[in-house]
Amino acid sequence: MTVSDLAKQMEAVKVLGPGRFGRAVKILGEMFGDEHYCKMVSLAGPIIPGGLRSVLVDLVEKDLINAVVTTGANVTHDMLEGLGHRHIVGSETDNDETLRRKGLSRIYDLLVKQSAIEHLERSTRRMLDRLPLEKRRNIGTFELLWHFGSQLNDKRSLLSVASRKQMPIFCPGIFDSMLGLDLWTYSQLNPLFINPFKDFSKLVNLSYEAKRVGAIILGGGMPKHHVLIANSYRGGVDAAIQITLDRPEGGGASGAPLEEAISWGKVKKRNNLVTLIGDAIVLFPIIALGALENARK
Amino acid sequence: MTVSDLAKQMEAVKVLGPGRFGRAVKILGEMFGDEHYCKMVSLAGPIIPGGLRSVLVDLVEKDLINAVVTTGANVTHDMLEGLGHRHIVGSETDNDETLRRKGLSRIYDLLVKQSAIEHLERSTRRMLDRLPLEKRRNIGTFELLWHFGSQLNDKRSLLSVASRKQMPIFCPGIFDSMLGLDLWTYSQLNPLFINPFKDFSKLVNLSYEAKRVGAIILGGGMPKHHVLIANSYRGGVDAAIQITLDRPEGGGASGAPLEEAISWGKVKKRNNLVTLIGDAIVLFPIIALGALENARK
Amino acid sequence: MTVSDLAKQMEAVKVLGPGRFGRAVKILGEMFGDEHYCKMVSLAGPIIPGGLRSVLVDLVEKDLINAVVTTGANVTHDMLEGLGHRHIVGSETDNDETLRRKGLSRIYDLLVKQSAIEHLERSTRRMLDRLPLEKRRNIGTFELLWHFGSQLNDKRSLLSVASRKQMPIFCPGIFDSMLGLDLWTYSQLNPLFINPFKDFSKLVNLSYEAKRVGAIILGGGMPKHHVLIANSYRGGVDAAIQITLDRPEGGGASGAPLEEAISWGKVKKRNNLVTLIGDAIVLFPIIALGALENARK
Amino acid sequence: MTVSDLAKQMEAVKVLGPGRFGRAVKILGEMFGDEHYCKMVSLAGPIIPGGLRSVLVDLVEKDLINAVVTTGANVTHDMLEGLGHRHIVGSETDNDETLRRKGLSRIYDLLVKQSAIEHLERSTRRMLDRLPLEKRRNIGTFELLWHFGSQLNDKRSLLSVASRKQMPIFCPGIFDSMLGLDLWTYSQLNPLFINPFKDFSKLVNLSYEAKRVGAIILGGGMPKHHVLIANSYRGGVDAAIQITLDRPEGGGASGAPLEEAISWGKVKKRNNLVTLIGDAIVLFPIIALGALENARK
Repeated sequence: MTVSDLAKQMEAVKVLGPGRFGRAVKILGEMFGDEHYCKMVSLAGPIIPGGLRSVLVDLVEKDLINAVVTTGANVTHDMLEGLGHRHIVGSETDNDETLRRKGLSRIYDLLVKQSAIEHLERSTRRMLDRLPLEKRRNIGTFELLWHFGSQLNDKRSLLSVASRKQMPIFCPGIFDSMLGLDLWTYSQLNPLFINPFKDFSKLVNLSYEAKRVGAIILGGGMPKHHVLIANSYRGGVDAAIQITLDRPEGGGASGAPLEEAISWGKVKKRNNLVTLIGDAIVLFPIIALGALENARK
Repeated sequence: MTVSDLAKQMEAVKVLGPGRFGRAVKILGEMFGDEHYCKMVSLAGPIIPGGLRSVLVDLVEKDLINAVVTTGANVTHDMLEGLGHRHIVGSETDNDETLRRKGLSRIYDLLVKQSAIEHLERSTRRMLDRLPLEKRRNIGTFELLWHFGSQLNDKRSLLSVASRKQMPIFCPGIFDSMLGLDLWTYSQLNPLFINPFKDFSKLVNLSYEAKRVGAIILGGGMPKHHVLIANSYRGGVDAAIQITLDRPEGGGASGAPLEEAISWGKVKKRNNLVTLIGDAIVLFPIIALGALENARK
Repeated sequence: MTVSDLAKQMEAVKVLGPGRFGRAVKILGEMFGDEHYCKMVSLAGPIIPGGLRSVLVDLVEKDLINAVVTTGANVTHDMLEGLGHRHIVGSETDNDETLRRKGLSRIYDLLVKQSAIEHLERSTRRMLDRLPLEKRRNIGTFELLWHFGSQLNDKRSLLSVASRKQMPIFCPGIFDSMLGLDLWTYSQLNPLFINPFKDFSKLVNLSYEAKRVGAIILGGGMPKHHVLIANSYRGGVDAAIQITLDRPEGGGASGAPLEEAISWGKVKKRNNLVTLIGDAIVLFPIIALGALENARK
Repeated sequence: MTVSDLAKQMEAVKVLGPGRFGRAVKILGEMFGDEHYCKMVSLAGPIIPGGLRSVLVDLVEKDLINAVVTTGANVTHDMLEGLGHRHIVGSETDNDETLRRKGLSRIYDLLVKQSAIEHLERSTRRMLDRLPLEKRRNIGTFELLWHFGSQLNDKRSLLSVASRKQMPIFCPGIFDSMLGLDLWTYSQLNPLFINPFKDFSKLVNLSYEAKRVGAIILGGGMPKHHVLIANSYRGGVDAAIQITLDRPEGGGASGAPLEEAISWGKVKKRNNLVTLIGDAIVLFPIIALGALENARK
């Protein structure tokens, strides 16, 4: 059975999780099948090390993603993989003091070598050196990441493909990551001035000029909110799917239902919205596959 | 792309949710492919109204499920559907006082007609009348449910198929459901004595006589714990997958990791266990599909 | 600062978690201050080993609890403590195979000695032997637990105090616990017939005869649903507070908002309801303390 | 009963939530009682509108907080309240399209008037105009927020007290908020250059110069990670408490246990760490009260 057949059966349930799963496939299929949709993807949590790197690269190659807003951690991991490093399989019950002594850092049950992070620092420095001085004096994160992408010799790197396709990747919290530490260290001895206003102008323009905007929200955090707030200038996104394990009751933006964003003018109306409670790195590949099959028909 | 191909790609991630998803497909495929595995399924939450009725019926028809332990609510819903009633699509923001006045009862975003529940009460009474008196004086829930299943004219009813296949469905909390109220009401005027010890003996025997036991835990609650505790007499289950949205930190059995059950002798060892955080009615159909494709090869 | 002063400040926030915390203190204070309220408490999760045993005993001593519905695990733990056993401090990252070899069983980060469980089995057998044969042939769980309570030499045992006060403790899933295994084992060689209908009749009568019913729902599971469904014969409870970490979106009864129960006739109206997302064994003692201070004024 | 007495009883449980609650009070009491501890607080989710504004202001007044890292939303809300606006009580089931038409924006069950947000924009513009041009050309968020604080006539404003006390508030995601939109709009017509490197240098210096660092993590998100990563230059924080409703299994930083940060060198060792699963705006005031009572002794 194909994934889109399965999705159709789930959609027929209409209620609860399966109804939402089916509707997510349907809405995403509509976004994918309509070139007038500007598809903006937000990434929070271990999206890249969790295996979506390859899914996202395929979608960017097919022009099915038009902008990405991400945490610094996902950029860091794309660069680590782009430099040839792979994560190591650990366990969520590993002893962290032992790992520290072994030079391993943990994300739930995956491990990263400290030596890889040091390699990243050296590489970042070299890449920054290659950036023209005047560029370095006033640069947005999407420009910086295009530059990094152009320097990576890995065709399956999200940064690399984004660079080639000139698809912007925004990283409003870039300083809050291992890569961010490298940027800060560099800035202590060299001119480097990252200008978040350049990013926001670019993102708002993208949103403003699009006929329709569709938000694909994987995890919560600042990336989610950033995509939505940037679209308030156009009266909100036209459609959105979000996949999250965060709860709504605490009142934080991460777990908030998409409907709430209507009251802020960040989403247009109730019709094309769906929230799926679950792990984005498990569900999104399945939903995307189903949506692609739908869009092809 | 088939679901099993997708699962293989996820399994390759090895870590986080995708790694667990891939392993769940693998473990379930091994259970399905090995006739010496006694497959015990536990059901909690709106499994039947959430669309798994049809998936479970197919698996029972193929002899891929050997015992079910469920909440009373799922039995109630199977009987409601067996009597021809379908749920109505509502919304989780519906006003419940209004619904009450309209004779509708709500489960998140699905609605059930009170008139359907009244129909169930009348039907249950008739079905109980048809049960020989001596049987009614000392009956286990699995026997009672076989009797109900034999009375339903719906080939896609789980009770009906279970009755035909003589596959036991245990309902240790049968009183705690709309069907349970009907049983209690009946018992006030007629002899009816449900004996939980008969159920437990049957379940323990099944477990004891099996070469291998595999637990498929959908949701938590008493059904989960019941399958595990019954297997403590044989030194634990040999393999298990569980899908749940419940958290471990509160210390309740619903959200507990399967590993914890090793310390109680309810699970044999760490190797063949996997917990997936998510909504069972979304994930199980996908995992089962992948496992079936695997088992066929 | 006293807890009730703090609660008043939280209540003043009116919204989000603090607003709910403040309202929970207020509603519980009204229940405690009004002798016409029949207070029914449901317990799921490690309520007794998590430290609420002493809080509950104090409330029963003060006649502030009129009925309890609980999982079998909580009864088991009350009896274990009543026999002099204390839990051992472990860790949620302990190796369960090692624990098994050491004769220790784990609940998150607390450990129970297998030898204590064996002691419980021997004691249970002796206590059952002391029960008159005709009683044993048709007994409700509340009667059985009164008997067990009368046999324990521990004044801080919930069963013991309940027995002395003739406050019923219902355990609809008693078979699904270590104590339940002991009952089943006993029944294999001796006459023992536990009749759940007797329990339900008693519970329904309590609810029916009460001027007002207030539900105090600690954790979800069958105990929560049982208290609510028993009150459907009187048109629903008049007030309720629930504290849970379970989510609503999956559609299970454990995480369902109390408002949903209005549509089933299990709760009367929206006014006196509050759901608090959190760990009941942390929050309830604080809320109860605040409510007691309020009720005294 | 005082809160610290209650906390001591909970600590005595040693395990599960109560054990963690008791330990959180103990660890926070040690931080509060030791002037060599640099206390760094991270805020994510509706901390300010959820009622902690007043608690935080009291702690800053008493020199018990030395640095704050927060989302832009909390700064926005502090300024809204500082300008005299109060939130309105709504409901999580309000219709958001209706709210939009009425000029109300929703955060779970609290409402904010759009007119208040417009007032904030005008005020922000005026405050920025008053900032010397050369300052505006290269400013960190902590300097910008001190300036805003100095302009507010509200003694219970966190920004205002922070400004008076010269306690830095860092807002690494300031652009991602209503206030951020105002800053961006202003920057389109006036020179304004916010330099995140200045913030990070200040934060790292604070951490580096402190004898001991204690992290108080309320909610997850970028603020949590930011406090921890800044402390990696000193080998990690010495003690930390975190209160969150986010789950660990997804692998995101928000829900990660503090122990994981040891493997990254962001936390020193296991001894002085505690994670409490719950709503920070409910639990922190209680824990802080208990800790203050402890520290006083």
